[in-house]
Amino acid sequence: MRHVDVLIIGGGPAGISAAIWCKRLGIDCLLLEEQSQLGGQLFNIFNEIVDYPGMRTKNGIEMQREMVKHFVEMDCLYEVNTKVLFIDERSKTVKVKKQAKKQEICYTYLILATGSSQRKLGVSGEQQMIDRGEVYSASADGERLKGKTVAIIGGGDRAFEGAHLLSSKAKEVYLIHRSTRFKAREQYVERVISNPGIKVMTDTEVTAIHGNRHVTSIDLESKNKEYKNLLVDAVLIRLGVAPNVDLIKGKVATAQNGLIVTDDVHQSSNPFIYAIGDACTTPLFSSISSSAGQGTIVAKHISSLLTES
Amino acid sequence: MRHVDVLIIGGGPAGISAAIWCKRLGIDCLLLEEQSQLGGQLFNIFNEIVDYPGMRTKNGIEMQREMVKHFVEMDCLYEVNTKVLFIDERSKTVKVKKQAKKQEICYTYLILATGSSQRKLGVSGEQQMIDRGEVYSASADGERLKGKTVAIIGGGDRAFEGAHLLSSKAKEVYLIHRSTRFKAREQYVERVISNPGIKVMTDTEVTAIHGNRHVTSIDLESKNKEYKNLLVDAVLIRLGVAPNVDLIKGKVATAQNGLIVTDDVHQSSNPFIYAIGDACTTPLFSSISSSAGQGTIVAKHISSLLTES
Repeated sequence: MRHVDVLIIGGGPAGISAAIWCKRLGIDCLLLEEQSQLGGQLFNIFNEIVDYPGMRTKNGIEMQREMVKHFVEMDCLYEVNTKVLFIDERSKTVKVKKQAKKQEICYTYLILATGSSQRKLGVSGEQQMIDRGEVYSASADGERLKGKTVAIIGGGDRAFEGAHLLSSKAKEVYLIHRSTRFKAREQYVERVISNPGIKVMTDTEVTAIHGNRHVTSIDLESKNKEYKNLLVDAVLIRLGVAPNVDLIKGKVATAQNGLIVTDDVHQSSNPFIYAIGDACTTPLFSSISSSAGQGTIVAKHISSLLTES
Repeated sequence: MRHVDVLIIGGGPAGISAAIWCKRLGIDCLLLEEQSQLGGQLFNIFNEIVDYPGMRTKNGIEMQREMVKHFVEMDCLYEVNTKVLFIDERSKTVKVKKQAKKQEICYTYLILATGSSQRKLGVSGEQQMIDRGEVYSASADGERLKGKTVAIIGGGDRAFEGAHLLSSKAKEVYLIHRSTRFKAREQYVERVISNPGIKVMTDTEVTAIHGNRHVTSIDLESKNKEYKNLLVDAVLIRLGVAPNVDLIKGKVATAQNGLIVTDDVHQSSNPFIYAIGDACTTPLFSSISSSAGQGTIVAKHISSLLTES
C-alpha cells in the first residue's frame, strides 16, 4: 500500500499552501483533489481580488493560475479527479477512487482542506439549473440580469446585499426567506425593506425550480400552506455555506455549525488529523490569506513532529 | 487630537496585511512605521522566497516591493520615519515622533505588528559591525565568505545550520556558545560535531568585536576565566530572535518568551489592543503567509466589532 507522511485532502488555497510548505520543509506529501483542477473555491470568485497581500488579480481564476503554477513549479505531488471515499482513522488509511480505479493510501498525518460549499435548497430543478451554469454573482452579473425578474433565496447578509445590488439593474427583485427573522445585519435589512423595487416574501419556502433551457418559474409554499407559482428568469440561492465534513463526521469533533474543531496548530480531536481552511474556519474569517497562513502553520507543526520522531 | 478607528504599529507583512484588509472593509485606519520604508523583516531575507503561495520572489526586497505596491495602490494611510514613543492604554492614545515633530494619536483599536529582532550580544564593536553592513546569511553568502575565517555565535538550529553550510566554503569555522547545552536539534548538533572543519567552543562568551573597516578579531572569555583573542574575518550572530514588545511591556500579558499572549482573533489581554505577526508568534511558526493571514483575521474581527457598535 502506498504510504505518505502527509496526505492532504482538498486542493484549494489552504491545501495548496500546506503542500507548498510540506515540500519546502522536505516532507513526503501527497495532495488529493476531487475536481479536475486544483483551486477549490477560487473558481467561484468573479470579482477582483484585492485582499491577498502582494498580489492583486482580476478574479479567482487568475489567482488559481498563479497558485497552481507555484505549486507545480515546486514539484508538489498531487492527484486530481480523485475522490476520497472513506477515511479509516484507526488504520490511518483512506480509500480513494480515480475514475474507475480504487486504491488505498496510508498516512502518518492527514490534513483536511476540504473547504465549504454553498448550501442548497434540495428541491427539484435546482441541480439542473446549476448544471446549466445559471449561477450568478449579484455584484458581477448586473448586466446579465438587466431587465430580468430575479428571485434571491435566503435571509443573511449575502441575500440582502444581493437584492440591494440587483434592485437597480433587474426589472423585479424578490427576496424570499422561509422565516420572518433575518440573520442579515440590521442596516442591510432596512435598506432592502425601504427599497420599493424589492418585494420581500417571508415565511415562504421554494419547493421547485422550473425551466428546461433556463429558469422560467419557481413554486412557493407559505407557512400557512398557500401555494403559488412565481414567474422568474433567474434564481440566486444565498443560504450561506456549510463546511465539507461528511467524510470525517463522527471521527473528529465538530462544532454545532459543522466546523471541525481544531487547536492553534490546527490539530483536530484526533492527533493524526488536522484541518485547515473553510472546513474549520467560520465564514466570517474565511479568506485566501488566512487559509494560506493556516497551511503554513500546519506544515511547520507537522514538520516539527516528524523531525522529533 | 487625531483619532483613527484602527492604529497599526509596524509595517511588515502582518501590518501591511491588516491595513489592506482594513481598507477593504472600509475601516478608518493608519499604519505607523519607524523605518524609512515599509517592509519590516522582508529586508533581511536574502534567499528566494518560495513559500508564499501564489508568489515567488528572488528575495525579500522583491516581496517588499510587491507588498508595498499593493498597499499604496489600495490607498492605505501610513506614516514612515514615525517612532511610537509611548502607548497610554488608559486614554487609548499613542505619542509619536516624526523627525523633530511630536504628536498624539487616539485610537479605538490598536494593532501591534512590531515584529521581532535578532538578539544581540551587546558587546563593544557589535553595532559598528552591523552598521558597516557586515551581516551575512550562511546560505546566501557562501561566496562572500569563501576562504575566510568565520565565527558563528549561538547554540540553536540556525547557528548549527550556518556552521554546517559554511564549513564547505570558509577556510575555518568556529561555533562559539556560552553554555555546553545546545538548543539545536540533535541531528544538527551531531552533524557539526562530527565535522572536522568546524571548531566548537563551549562555555565561551564573546566580549568584544574588533576591527575598523571590517572585523579582524574577537575577544573571548571562558567560564573558568580564560581570556583569548581570536583572529576572524566575519562574525555571524545567531542568538535567535526576540519579539519587539518594549513599548507594551506591563500593559498586556506576555509569555515567558516575551511574546504577546493573544486569543484566536489576536486580541491581547487588553480588549482594545491586538497583536499579529512575530510580536505574538513563536519563531517556529513565523512566516510571511501566517503573518498575512493574521492581519486578515484581526481586521475582519475588528470590522465586526465596529459594525456592531
